[in-house]
Amino acid sequence: MRILFLNGPNLNMLGLREPGIYGSKSLGDIGDTLRERAKAAGVEINFRQSNHEGELVTWIQDARGQFDFIVLNAGAYTHTSIALRDAISAAEVPTIEIHLSNIHARESFRHQSMIAPVCIGQIAGFGEDSYHLALEACLKKMI
Amino acid sequence: MRILFLNGPNLNMLGLREPGIYGSKSLGDIGDTLRERAKAAGVEINFRQSNHEGELVTWIQDARGQFDFIVLNAGAYTHTSIALRDAISAAEVPTIEIHLSNIHARESFRHQSMIAPVCIGQIAGFGEDSYHLALEACLKKMI
Amino acid sequence: MRILFLNGPNLNMLGLREPGIYGSKSLGDIGDTLRERAKAAGVEINFRQSNHEGELVTWIQDARGQFDFIVLNAGAYTHTSIALRDAISAAEVPTIEIHLSNIHARESFRHQSMIAPVCIGQIAGFGEDSYHLALEACLKKMI
Amino acid sequence: MRILFLNGPNLNMLGLREPGIYGSKSLGDIGDTLRERAKAAGVEINFRQSNHEGELVTWIQDARGQFDFIVLNAGAYTHTSIALRDAISAAEVPTIEIHLSNIHARESFRHQSMIAPVCIGQIAGFGEDSYHLALEACLKKMI
Amino acid sequence: MRILFLNGPNLNMLGLREPGIYGSKSLGDIGDTLRERAKAAGVEINFRQSNHEGELVTWIQDARGQFDFIVLNAGAYTHTSIALRDAISAAEVPTIEIHLSNIHARESFRHQSMIAPVCIGQIAGFGEDSYHLALEACLKKMI
Amino acid sequence: MRILFLNGPNLNMLGLREPGIYGSKSLGDIGDTLRERAKAAGVEINFRQSNHEGELVTWIQDARGQFDFIVLNAGAYTHTSIALRDAISAAEVPTIEIHLSNIHARESFRHQSMIAPVCIGQIAGFGEDSYHLALEACLKKMI
Amino acid sequence: MRILFLNGPNLNMLGLREPGIYGSKSLGDIGDTLRERAKAAGVEINFRQSNHEGELVTWIQDARGQFDFIVLNAGAYTHTSIALRDAISAAEVPTIEIHLSNIHARESFRHQSMIAPVCIGQIAGFGEDSYHLALEACLKKMI
Amino acid sequence: MRILFLNGPNLNMLGLREPGIYGSKSLGDIGDTLRERAKAAGVEINFRQSNHEGELVTWIQDARGQFDFIVLNAGAYTHTSIALRDAISAAEVPTIEIHLSNIHARESFRHQSMIAPVCIGQIAGFGEDSYHLALEACLKKMI
Amino acid sequence: MRILFLNGPNLNMLGLREPGIYGSKSLGDIGDTLRERAKAAGVEINFRQSNHEGELVTWIQDARGQFDFIVLNAGAYTHTSIALRDAISAAEVPTIEIHLSNIHARESFRHQSMIAPVCIGQIAGFGEDSYHLALEACLKKMI
Amino acid sequence: MRILFLNGPNLNMLGLREPGIYGSKSLGDIGDTLRERAKAAGVEINFRQSNHEGELVTWIQDARGQFDFIVLNAGAYTHTSIALRDAISAAEVPTIEIHLSNIHARESFRHQSMIAPVCIGQIAGFGEDSYHLALEACLKKMI
Amino acid sequence: MRILFLNGPNLNMLGLREPGIYGSKSLGDIGDTLRERAKAAGVEINFRQSNHEGELVTWIQDARGQFDFIVLNAGAYTHTSIALRDAISAAEVPTIEIHLSNIHARESFRHQSMIAPVCIGQIAGFGEDSYHLALEACLKKMI
Amino acid sequence: MRILFLNGPNLNMLGLREPGIYGSKSLGDIGDTLRERAKAAGVEINFRQSNHEGELVTWIQDARGQFDFIVLNAGAYTHTSIALRDAISAAEVPTIEIHLSNIHARESFRHQSMIAPVCIGQIAGFGEDSYHLALEACLKKMI
Repeated sequence: MRILFLNGPNLNMLGLREPGIYGSKSLGDIGDTLRERAKAAGVEINFRQSNHEGELVTWIQDARGQFDFIVLNAGAYTHTSIALRDAISAAEVPTIEIHLSNIHARESFRHQSMIAPVCIGQIAGFGEDSYHLALEACLKKMI
Repeated sequence: MRILFLNGPNLNMLGLREPGIYGSKSLGDIGDTLRERAKAAGVEINFRQSNHEGELVTWIQDARGQFDFIVLNAGAYTHTSIALRDAISAAEVPTIEIHLSNIHARESFRHQSMIAPVCIGQIAGFGEDSYHLALEACLKKMI
Repeated sequence: MRILFLNGPNLNMLGLREPGIYGSKSLGDIGDTLRERAKAAGVEINFRQSNHEGELVTWIQDARGQFDFIVLNAGAYTHTSIALRDAISAAEVPTIEIHLSNIHARESFRHQSMIAPVCIGQIAGFGEDSYHLALEACLKKMI
Repeated sequence: MRILFLNGPNLNMLGLREPGIYGSKSLGDIGDTLRERAKAAGVEINFRQSNHEGELVTWIQDARGQFDFIVLNAGAYTHTSIALRDAISAAEVPTIEIHLSNIHARESFRHQSMIAPVCIGQIAGFGEDSYHLALEACLKKMI
Repeated sequence: MRILFLNGPNLNMLGLREPGIYGSKSLGDIGDTLRERAKAAGVEINFRQSNHEGELVTWIQDARGQFDFIVLNAGAYTHTSIALRDAISAAEVPTIEIHLSNIHARESFRHQSMIAPVCIGQIAGFGEDSYHLALEACLKKMI
Repeated sequence: MRILFLNGPNLNMLGLREPGIYGSKSLGDIGDTLRERAKAAGVEINFRQSNHEGELVTWIQDARGQFDFIVLNAGAYTHTSIALRDAISAAEVPTIEIHLSNIHARESFRHQSMIAPVCIGQIAGFGEDSYHLALEACLKKMI
Repeated sequence: MRILFLNGPNLNMLGLREPGIYGSKSLGDIGDTLRERAKAAGVEINFRQSNHEGELVTWIQDARGQFDFIVLNAGAYTHTSIALRDAISAAEVPTIEIHLSNIHARESFRHQSMIAPVCIGQIAGFGEDSYHLALEACLKKMI
Repeated sequence: MRILFLNGPNLNMLGLREPGIYGSKSLGDIGDTLRERAKAAGVEINFRQSNHEGELVTWIQDARGQFDFIVLNAGAYTHTSIALRDAISAAEVPTIEIHLSNIHARESFRHQSMIAPVCIGQIAGFGEDSYHLALEACLKKMI
Repeated sequence: MRILFLNGPNLNMLGLREPGIYGSKSLGDIGDTLRERAKAAGVEINFRQSNHEGELVTWIQDARGQFDFIVLNAGAYTHTSIALRDAISAAEVPTIEIHLSNIHARESFRHQSMIAPVCIGQIAGFGEDSYHLALEACLKKMI
Repeated sequence: MRILFLNGPNLNMLGLREPGIYGSKSLGDIGDTLRERAKAAGVEINFRQSNHEGELVTWIQDARGQFDFIVLNAGAYTHTSIALRDAISAAEVPTIEIHLSNIHARESFRHQSMIAPVCIGQIAGFGEDSYHLALEACLKKMI
Repeated sequence: MRILFLNGPNLNMLGLREPGIYGSKSLGDIGDTLRERAKAAGVEINFRQSNHEGELVTWIQDARGQFDFIVLNAGAYTHTSIALRDAISAAEVPTIEIHLSNIHARESFRHQSMIAPVCIGQIAGFGEDSYHLALEACLKKMI
Repeated sequence: MRILFLNGPNLNMLGLREPGIYGSKSLGDIGDTLRERAKAAGVEINFRQSNHEGELVTWIQDARGQFDFIVLNAGAYTHTSIALRDAISAAEVPTIEIHLSNIHARESFRHQSMIAPVCIGQIAGFGEDSYHLALEACLKKMI
C-alpha cells in the first residue's frame, strides 16, 4: 500500500514562516514523523513539495496506478487551480484535501476550494495533525 | 476528559436515509462505536441529536465548563445558523466541525459554513469515519 | 390512503391576520373542510401546524412509511430551511408544496423556495383553494 | 363562462419530446380531455398553441372582455418575456400560470417567472394534471 | 424628409389599458396628431405597431435608405432585445428611443435599455408628448 | 400599559460571554433594572428569553391584544428569520428592534435585519442602555 | 410662469471641454438662447450652475413655491446623489432630468440615475437641444 | 459637558416636507426642545444644519477636543459619504448616528450606512424622539 | 444526407451591414457556396433565414426526422432564447452553433450562449468560414 | 507555412482519462494525424504539450515571427490565465482557441475564456476534430 | 513649470489624526518640504486642501492652461466622485493620483478609484513620500 | 543594502510588444539603467524575470534575509496569484508593487491586486519610471 503526500506553494517555508501560527516544525520534520507512523502501519509513503502548479499536476498524473491514495495540501493553488482539479479527475487515485489552517475561518477568497468536488473529503485546521488525520483516514479506508 | 458529540437535524435518519450514500449504520450504532473507542482512550463522551436549532444552541451553551471539546455535525443548520455560531463563541469550548459527506462537493448552498470561523477545524466527507477522525483530533489536542 | 397536511409558522394566525388578504377563515376551518372532502373521497387526512422548524422536521421524518403524500405549507421556512429540504429527502414521501399567496408576486426574498427541488410540484396563490387543489392533485396521482 | 388556455413555444412537441419526462399524450389529447371536463361543468374553453411571443401577446390582448380566465403555460417565454407580462396587465383577465414540470426544481434560469407578479397564482409540476388543476381553480373562483 | 415611428408590443392597447396612467387617447389618435404636426413642418411620417419582435426588426432593416429618422417606442422589448439593437446598427438610420412612462422610475428590470447604446438619445416619461418631443428633436437635427 | 421584552438566542449567556464586550451584568439583572424603572413610570413589563425561533414566534403571536409594545432583541435570528418578521406583522403590536452591539459595525452578515421593515425603529450599540432607551421610546410613544 | 434651469458640476466647462463631443457653445450661450425662446413663449426662466452638491440642494429647496418647473442637468451628481433626490421630493416642484449626452450609451456607472424616480421624465442625448426639448415639455405640460 | 447635534442635507425642510411622514415640527423647533431638556440636565448643546458634505466634515473635525459627544443625522450623506466617516475617525469624539425614519424599512439604498462602523450606535425610526433618545444615550454614557 | 442551415435575426443584412467587419458577401452568396461544396460531398443542404424567434423554433421542430444535422447561427437570439434551446432539445437533431464573429471577444452580454448546453459544439469568429467549418464538422461526424 | 499546436495541462492524459468522453486516442496519435494532413497541404506543424503555464507562455512568445498561426488548446488555463492572454497579445501571431469538449455545456467556471478576446475565433466540442477543423481554418485563412 | 498639489477631505487633520498610522507631520509641513524640493528643481508649486468636493472640482477646472501637472490626493472622494473624474477630463492637465496609505490593503470600498481611469498613474502607501515620489514623477515626465 | 527587482510573465517582451504603449526599451535596458542609478546610491540590485509563477514564488522565498526590499512587477499574476501573496508574507521582506501601465485604467479584471494587501505600496502607470520611482521609495525608506 502506497500513499502520496503532496505539498503546494510556500509549504517549504513551514517552521520559518509565522511560527506563532504555523508551528515551529519544518515540512521535513512533518514528513519524517509521517514516515515513521506509516511504517508502523505497514504503509509506504512518498512526501514531496513544489511551488510549481505544473509540477504538482504532473506528480498527480504520475500517481495513476502507482499509489492507493493522494493526500494533497495544495496551499494557495487550492482556491484557483482548475488544472489540479482536472489532474485529480484524470489520475483516478482517491484524493484527500488537507490544510494546516481552517481555511473557512480566513479571508473569503480562501473559503472556496476548486479541488474539493473531485476529492473524497477535506481536513482543515489541525496544523501538523491535519496530515496525521489524513493518514488515519487512508488507513481506515484501506481496511 | 469529556467530549460532547452533537448531531443536528435529520441525522437521526441515518441508516434509513439513502443507505447507498450515507451507509446502513444508524446514528446509535455510530455513538456506540465511539463510546467504545473513547473508553479505551480513557475519555468520556456524550452523544446527542436534535432537530431543533434552539436545543442545539442550549446544549452548546451548557457545555461551558463541562466539556473539553465539542464535536459538532450541525447538518443543515451548518449553512444558515448564526445562532449556533454565537453559541460556540459564548460557550468557549473548543469545537470541531464535522460532516458525513464532502459538503464542498455538493450543491453550492452547502459550500458555506456559518460556524467554521469559530471552530478549530473541519473534517468532511469520510462518512462515519468523520466522527472517528474528530475523536482522534481531540485526543491529539489533549496530549 | 393517508395524506399529511403540515402548516408552518404563523399559519395559526389565519383568520386573525390581515383578513383582507388571507381571508377570514381560521386554519381549523380549513382543516375541517379538507377532512370532509377527504372523507368523501375515501382518504384519511392528518392536519397539523407548528411554529418550530425542528418539530416540522420531525413530523416529516415520522411520515415515512405512514403517509402516501405530504402537503406542506412551510410558510416563512420555505425560503430558508435546508433542514426541511433534507427531511423531505429522507422521508421519501411524495410532497406537494403549497402557499396561500402567490409568493412569486411578493418581496424578492419570498421568490426562492429551498424545498421546491425535492417536491413534486408547487401550488401558490389560491388562498384556501391551494389546499383543495393539492388534495385534488394527490387524488389524481393516487388513481 | 369562458376560459382561454394558451400554450407557448415547443408545447406542440408534447408526446414526441422526451415522453419519459413529459408523458406520451399530445397537446391535442390534453385539449380534448379538458374540453370534455369543461363541458360537464358547463364551461366553454378555447385551447391554442403558438411558438411566437407576439402571437401569444395578441391572443392575450384579444381575451379582454371575451374570457373570464386565462390559463397560461408560457413555456420558455415564462422566464424572459416582459411583453407577455404587460399583455396580461393590459388584458385585465384573471390569469393562472401553469407548468408541466416543477420549474423550481430545474436549471436556475427557469426559477424566475416574469409573469408571476401579474398572475393570480401558479401551478407547476403535475404534468397534464397542471391543466386540470387550473381548470378546477377557475371553477372554484367562479362559484 | 421622412420619419418612421415604430411602436412595440401592447402599445396597441393604449386608451384601453389603465387610462389613469397611460391616458385615454388611442395609439391611432397619437399617430393622427403627429401626422398633422409633421405635415405642417413639411415632413412625411409613417406610423406602425407590432407585437412581434421579428416584425419590428424587419421594419427597422427596411428603413435603411428610406427614412431620415426612426422614432422607436420598443415597449417591453426595450429591455431584452439584442435583435432590435443589432437591427438599428445594421439599418444605419439615426434612431430616437422614446417611452410613455419614465422607465427609470419603475421596476428595476425596466431601468436597463438594450437599445440605448445604439440610439441618438432617449425621451421618457412625457406620455403622448414623448412622441411630439421626439418629432421636435428630429426637426431640430434636420435643420 | 404593558410592554413585552423578548430576547433571542444566546442572550441568556450575558455576563458570562465576553464580559469585556457585553458587560458583566446578566440578562436577569437587566430585567430587574427595567422592571424597577417601568414600575416607577406606571408600566408593567414582561421579560423573557428563548433560544428557540419557534417559541419567539409564538410569544409574539400571543402578544396580540395583550401588550402595547414589544421590545425585541432577536439576537442571531434578526438576520435570517422571516418567521419572526411574519409574526410581528400578524401580531399587530408596535415593535422596537434593539441590539446590544452596533450590528452595522460588525460582520457584514449582521448588517441586514429581516425584521426591521416591520418594526417602528431600531436602537443598536448602547449595551444595556439599548433596553432602557427602548423603554423611553415606548413611554414617549404612549404619551 | 417660471422655470428654473439648474446645471451641475463641470457644465461650466462647456465649449472648452472636448468641443468635438459637447459642441463649441458655452453654457452661457445656451442660457441666452433659452431665455429668448422662453420670452417669446411668455415664460420667465432662471439659469444657474454650481459645482457644489450642497448648493444645488439648496437651490432646489428654494424653488419650492417659486417655480412651476425645474429642469435639472445634474451632471456627475446624477448617478450618486441621494441628497439631490431628497431635495426634489421635498421641493415638490415638477422636475425634468436632462443630459447633453446619451448617458445610457456611456460607461456603466452613468446608466443609473439616482434622481430619475422622483422626476417626471428624462431627456438625454440631444446636446444643447436637450435643454430646448425640456423647455418644450414644460410648455406642453403648462397648457 | 457639551454635545454637538449635526443635521445633514434637506433636514432644514422638516415641517414643510411631507408632514404626514416627518411631522409638522420644524428643525428649529426640535433644536429648541432639545436645548431646554439639555439645560435641565446641565448640558450645553450646539445644534446646526448644512446641505454641504464639506461643511459637515469641517464641523465634525472642529468638534475635536470641543465636544463630549456628536449626535449626527447625516441624512442622505449617511449612505454614500466616506468623507464623513473619515472625519468621525479623525475627530475622535464619540458619535451617535440617528435617523428620523427607520432607514432599514425604506428603499434598499438607504439600508447601508457608511458611517455606522465608526459610531457608537444607531437610533432610527422614532421621528423627533430619535433626537431625544440620543440625548438620553449621551447622558447615560456620561454618568 | 441532409443538413439544415438556419440563420437568425439581421443575418439577412450581411454584405450591407458594416462590410468592414462582416465582409461584402451577402447571406445568399454564402448559401450558394455552401450548396456547391455540399453537392460535391454528396450532401443536400437547406439554407434559411428569419427575424422571428417563433419561426426559427418551428423550423427546428420540423427538422425532427428530416435532417441529419442543424447548423444554427442564431444571431442575437443566441444570448436570450430559452425557446430555441428547448426546440433543439425537442427536435433531437444534432446541432452545431456558429457565429460569424468571435462572440467571446465582444460585449459581455454576447459571451453567454443559452443554446450551447444543448449543442454538439461551437464555431465562432471565422466569418463566412464558420459556415464552411461547420459543414466540415458535419461531414466528419457522418463518416 | 508553419503552424504551432499547443496543448495545456492534462491533455497528455488523453486516451487514458475517461475514454468514454475524450476518446481512446492519445495526444500523440492526434499529433501524428495532424502532421500527415498538414504535410499533404504543404504546411509544417509543430505539436507540443505542457502542464506549466509559464512554459506555455514562453512557447507562445517564441512563436513570434516563427509561425503563421497558433492553435491553442489551453485546457484548464483557458479560464484563469491572464498570462497566456498577454502572451498572445505580445506574440502577434494569429491564434485559434480550441477545446475537445463543448466548454459552454459544462460547469459554469468553464464558460468564461480569458484568452478568447485576443484570439481569432473558437472551436469547441468536436473532440479530436476540433484540431482538424482548426487546421482547416488556418488553411482557409492562408489562401 | 508649475505643479498643483490638491488635497481632499480630512487631510487637514494630518499630524493630529492617528499619528501612529499617518505620521506626526502636518499637511502644512509636507507642503513646506515639497516647496523647498520644487524650488531646488526650478519648479513652482501650489499646495491646497479642501473638504468640499465642489471646491476641488473648481480648482481642477481652473488649473486648465495654468499648470503642467496636478498631483491629487482626493482622500475619501477618490472612491465615489464622478465629478472629480469629469473635472480632470475637462481640465486636460496631466494628473497623478496619490494616497498616503496603501488603499488596496484597506477596506474593500477603498480599493476602487473613480478617478484612476483619467489619471496618468497612481502612487499609494508611502506616507509623506507619496507626495515626493509624485513630484519626482512630474520632474521625470517634464524632461 | 540590497534590493531585488522581480519581473513576472511577458515582461521579457518589453521593447518588442506594442512599443507605442510600452516604449521601445527592453527589460534588459531598464535593468542596466537601474543598476547604474543604484550603484551611484551605494545600493546593490538584483534584476530578474520569469514566466513561471512557481519560480517567482521561490525567488521571493529565497529573498528572506538576503534583501532589504523587493520591487515586484508581477505582471498578469498580480490579479490571480494567491501563491505570490503567501510568498511575500512568508519572506518578510518589505515589498513594493509596481506596474508599467495604470492597471486601474484598464480592463476591470486588472483592477484587483491579490498581492497589494501584503505590500507596502503601489506605483502604477509611469512606464519605465515606475521602476525608478520604486528605487527612490526604497532609498527614502532606507534613510
